Amino acid sequence: MHVLITGAAGMVGRKLAERLAREGSCAGRAISKLTLSDVVPASLPAELANRATIRVEDSGDAAVAKALAALRPDLIFHLAAIISGEAERDFDKGYRVNLDGMRNLLEAIRHEGGAAYAPKFVFTSSSGIFGAPFPPSISDEFHVTPLTSYGTQKAIGELLLADYSRRGFVDGVGIRFPSIVVRPGKPNASAGGFFSGIIREPLQGVEALLPVGDEVLFTHASPRSAVGFLIHAAGLSREELGTRVNLTMPGVCVTVGDQIEALRRIAGDKAVKLIRRAPDPASSAIVAGWPTRFDAKRALALGFTAERDFDEIIRVHIADDLGGHLPN
Amino acid sequence: MHVLITGAAGMVGRKLAERLAREGSCAGRAISKLTLSDVVPASLPAELANRATIRVEDSGDAAVAKALAALRPDLIFHLAAIISGEAERDFDKGYRVNLDGMRNLLEAIRHEGGAAYAPKFVFTSSSGIFGAPFPPSISDEFHVTPLTSYGTQKAIGELLLADYSRRGFVDGVGIRFPSIVVRPGKPNASAGGFFSGIIREPLQGVEALLPVGDEVLFTHASPRSAVGFLIHAAGLSREELGTRVNLTMPGVCVTVGDQIEALRRIAGDKAVKLIRRAPDPASSAIVAGWPTRFDAKRALALGFTAERDFDEIIRVHIADDLGGHLPN
Ligand SMILES: NC(=O)c1ccc[n+]([C@@H]2O[C@H](COP(=O)([O-])OP(=O)(O)OC[C@H]3O[C@@H](n4cnc5c(N)ncnc54)[C@H](O)[C@@H]3O)[C@@H](O)[C@H]2O)c1
Ligand SMILES: NC(=O)c1ccc[n+]([C@@H]2O[C@H](COP(=O)([O-])OP(=O)(O)OC[C@H]3O[C@@H](n4cnc5c(N)ncnc54)[C@H](O)[C@@H]3O)[C@@H](O)[C@H]2O)c1
Repeated sequence: MHVLITGAAGMVGRKLAERLAREGSCAGRAISKLTLSDVVPASLPAELANRATIRVEDSGDAAVAKALAALRPDLIFHLAAIISGEAERDFDKGYRVNLDGMRNLLEAIRHEGGAAYAPKFVFTSSSGIFGAPFPPSISDEFHVTPLTSYGTQKAIGELLLADYSRRGFVDGVGIRFPSIVVRPGKPNASAGGFFSGIIREPLQGVEALLPVGDEVLFTHASPRSAVGFLIHAAGLSREELGTRVNLTMPGVCVTVGDQIEALRRIAGDKAVKLIRRAPDPASSAIVAGWPTRFDAKRALALGFTAERDFDEIIRVHIADDLGGHLPN
Repeated sequence: MHVLITGAAGMVGRKLAERLAREGSCAGRAISKLTLSDVVPASLPAELANRATIRVEDSGDAAVAKALAALRPDLIFHLAAIISGEAERDFDKGYRVNLDGMRNLLEAIRHEGGAAYAPKFVFTSSSGIFGAPFPPSISDEFHVTPLTSYGTQKAIGELLLADYSRRGFVDGVGIRFPSIVVRPGKPNASAGGFFSGIIREPLQGVEALLPVGDEVLFTHASPRSAVGFLIHAAGLSREELGTRVNLTMPGVCVTVGDQIEALRRIAGDKAVKLIRRAPDPASSAIVAGWPTRFDAKRALALGFTAERDFDEIIRVHIADDLGGHLPN
C-alpha cells in the first residue's frame, strides 16, 4: 500500500510518519511506499527510508494536488494546514492553504480516476469548527458555527469530504482533533499555546506564562493519541462510518487548575512554581469562544480512545518527547 | 439605494423584483437603482423600469462577480443557483454556479472596498443543507449534514457568508427556505416538484401525478412568503443577527394528505380527482432523506412569518398567480 502524508513535517505528521515506519503497516495492510509532502522538508523515518520519498511543495497549488493524485496513493492523510492565528492574520493564505488545498486535492483525485480510483482519505479537522455559545457538553449533532476563518475553512473541508465521499470519489473520514497537548519543541504564538507551555517549559526548568484563569475548561489529547486517531480512522469502513463521515474525537476535559495539579503530582512543587500568572484579557476573550467539552459518543462507539486523565498526557510527553525521564 | 438581485429571472427573483418595484423601497430606504442579473434575461418591472438595468451574464464567472461588485450595490439578494436535481446530475456545474458563484461574489466585494464598502448581503440557502436522520423537529442548533451536492454547496455558502460577515466584508444574512409552494408555471423535473404539481395542475383542470404516499410530511411556504423573508432579512441589523447569521425559516408543516384536503376545501372534489397516485420508490427514497419539520425559533423571534395553514398557501397562489380566481 502507498501512503501519502501532507503536512508531514508538522508536529502530528512527523509522529505519524515515525509510527507508520515503525509498524510497517496501517489498517492491516503493509506499507510498500510512503510519500511525505510538506512546504518544508520532512525527515525520513529510519525504518522506511528506502521506501519513502520526501517532496517539498506548496499544497495550496493546484498543480501540486494533481501531481500527488497522479501518484495514486491508496491512503492519504491530509494534514497540511496553517494554524488558526495565521489564518486569522492572513485571510488569503488561510483560504488558499486550508480550503483550496483541500478542494484541489479532492478534485485532482476525482479527475484521476472517478470510481476506479477512490483512496481512503483521512482529513484532520478541528474542534475550532464550533463557535460559542455552547451547551454544557457538545453533542455529535451540534451545529457547526465557527468564529474563526480557520474553523470556517476546516468546516468547509468537512462538507466537501462528505460530498466527495457520498459520490464515491474518495472514502473519506474527517477527524476533529481536540487541543493536542503537550506540543513538543519551542513555544509558538498560537492563542492556545499556553496549554502546552505550562507543562512543557516547567518540565525543562523554564518559566511559563499563564494568560488565563485556573478555571478555564478545555479538552486535550496527546500527540500520540492524535496519531492513534488518524490510524484508527484509516481502518474504518464506509459501512461503519455511514454518511456522517466527520467525527468529534474524545479527549481529557480538565481545567487549567487540574492541569497544574497533574504537573505537581508528576514533577513536584518546583515545576509548578515556574508557572507565572500573567492574566491577559485578549487571550482570555479568544479562549472563551472555544468549545470546552464534547460527548464524542460516536467516536467512542467506533473505538477511538484518548488518555484517561491529564497525568497520562504528561507521561506520554515524557515518554515520547523527553526520552522517558524528567530532565534534571 | 442601489439593489442588486442575482437570479432575477427565476421564480423568487422575479416576484422579489416586482414587489420592490411596487413598493419603491426596501428596509426603509428608497430604491434609486435596481440591477437584475441572470443568465437568462429578467423582465423589467413596470414601476421601476427607468431605474432598472437588466444584465444577462453567468454568475459562475469571476469576471461577472467583479463587474457586479464594481457597481457597489448597497443591498444584494444573491439568488442565482442551479437546483438540487441539476447539481446532482452535473457535479462541475453545481460547484461552479452554487459555490464558486457565491465565493467569487464575496471575494469581489472584499476586494472592492474592504470595510469601506460592506453591502447588506442576503443569501438564499435551503433546508436541503440538512440530511437524515432527523429528530422529530429540527432545532436551530441541529447539525448541518447535507446528502446532496446542492445542499453541500448551500451549506458552504452559509459558512463563507458568516466568515465574511464576521470580518466586516459584508453584512450578511442567510435565509434557509423551506419548500416554496405553489410554484407557478410549467411542471419541472425536480424531485419535490409534485408538492406544487398536485395543487397547481388540478386548479387548472389538469391531471397531476403523486409519486409518494399521503403520509409524507414536509414544510412549505408560498413564493409570497419567500419574498417576504428576503425583504425582512434585508432590514435586520448586525446586532439582531449576532454571529449566527444563517436562519431556518418558518413554514407550514403538513402531510401530502393535508395538502389534498386543503385543495378539496378550496376547489372541491373535482380538483382532488385529478390527482393520480403513481407510487415511485425512487422519488419516495429521495424525499425520505429530506427534513420534515423545523422549530425555526430564532426566525420567529426575529419577526419572520409564513402562512398559518396550507389553505392560505393555495389562496396566495390563486391571488398572485391566477389573477385572484379559480380558472373555470
Ligand atoms: N495541534 C493541534 O492542537 C491541532 C488541533 C486541531 C487540528 N489540528 C490539525 O491537525 C493537522 C496537523 O496539526 P499539527 O499540529 O501537526 O500542525 P503543524 O502546524 O505542526 O503542521 C502543519 C504542517 O503543514 C505544513 N504546511 C503549511 N502550509 C503548507 C502548504 N502550503 N503546503 C504544504 N504544507 C504546508 C507546515 O509546514 C507544517 O509542517 C493540521 O491540519 C491542523 O490544522 C491540529
Ligand atoms: N424554490 C424553492 O423551493 C427553493 C427552496 C430552497 C432554496 N431555494 C433557493 O432560492 C433561490 C431562488 O429559487 P427559485 O425557486 O427562484 O429558483 P429558480 O431556479 O426559479 O431561479 C434561479 C435563477 O438563477 C438563474 N441562474 C442559474 N444559473 C445561473 C448562472 N450561472 N448565472 C446567473 N444566473 C443563473 C436561473 O436562470 C434562474 O433564473 C435559489 O438560490 C434556490 O436555490 C429555492
